[in-house]
Amino acid sequence: MTLPAFVFVTIILLRFFSQFNIKTLKAFQDFYPDDLSHCYGCGRNNTHGHHLKSYWDGDHTFARFTPEPWHIAIPGFVYGGLIASLIDCHGIGSAAAAVYRAENRKMDSQPPVRFVTASLKVDFLAPTPAGETLELNGEIVEIGVKKVIVDISVSAAGIKCAQGRVIAVKIPEDMLPKRLG
Amino acid sequence: MTLPAFVFVTIILLRFFSQFNIKTLKAFQDFYPDDLSHCYGCGRNNTHGHHLKSYWDGDHTFARFTPEPWHIAIPGFVYGGLIASLIDCHGIGSAAAAVYRAENRKMDSQPPVRFVTASLKVDFLAPTPAGETLELNGEIVEIGVKKVIVDISVSAAGIKCAQGRVIAVKIPEDMLPKRLG
Repeated sequence: MTLPAFVFVTIILLRFFSQFNIKTLKAFQDFYPDDLSHCYGCGRNNTHGHHLKSYWDGDHTFARFTPEPWHIAIPGFVYGGLIASLIDCHGIGSAAAAVYRAENRKMDSQPPVRFVTASLKVDFLAPTPAGETLELNGEIVEIGVKKVIVDISVSAAGIKCAQGRVIAVKIPEDMLPKRLG
Repeated sequence: MTLPAFVFVTIILLRFFSQFNIKTLKAFQDFYPDDLSHCYGCGRNNTHGHHLKSYWDGDHTFARFTPEPWHIAIPGFVYGGLIASLIDCHGIGSAAAAVYRAENRKMDSQPPVRFVTASLKVDFLAPTPAGETLELNGEIVEIGVKKVIVDISVSAAGIKCAQGRVIAVKIPEDMLPKRLG
């Protein structure tokens, strides 16, 4: 095989396999303990839920979600409550991942790090068109002893539609399932 | 019938019928035009949605919602994204109702008043127990030319679990269905 042909084939193969990349990586939420994985927004054990999956992308975090046709505010536009929910879950997942990374720990190491939302703020910047995959991009703003702040933007079709901030706090002991409490 | 007997029977009858009161009143959302009633959170024409209903209670607004068993963050506690969604819809409905009332107009008068969310903020004050009916109480903070601000508390089993603020703005022309645009 000539060098140009080799480069061409390599590029084609990389492009082909890159589409599966997101499917083979483990998401932050895949590391949550089984009995803390029932969240309606992102828990793998909630059969009715959204199953949001969050990942690292360099120093940022990202997630993608395609709303169902009924997730609308008015015909043609995505429901803001759904966007708020996705920001919430992506923020909480990003907060946990940021702590593991800051402590130089693997996400399956013990004890598990799990957050809940103390505060959620969303500014809706532009109407979010229905029928598009939403892209969530998270930035770790602050890692404190008790709380983590994550800023999250939501884009659809390349347009930034919402900007959110999640203040995440470590899960209180009395919210933990008995096995872990 | 003696007076004490009359008073007794009247009290019993009032108590009996008061439980149906919320069912016979029309909610704010019942006045939304048909083609603006598809909201996943509160639209009567969204077959998959939550169908939140908001009402006046003196100068305040209220709504009740019983989460489904799968609307959880972790077992035993309600999903914060749902709470944010309910605050959003109750705030938007309350904003519209407040404008009709401020303009001394009936809610079925023309033109329809309809808002969208510019900003949503929720502080989660206490874990929200699952299995309880949530009570939303709205306070109209400000009615401006273009925006209305509504503060909303969410209680479960008598405990205030969340405090939210919705900044609602009049729906942009380009979001209106063609018929109304």
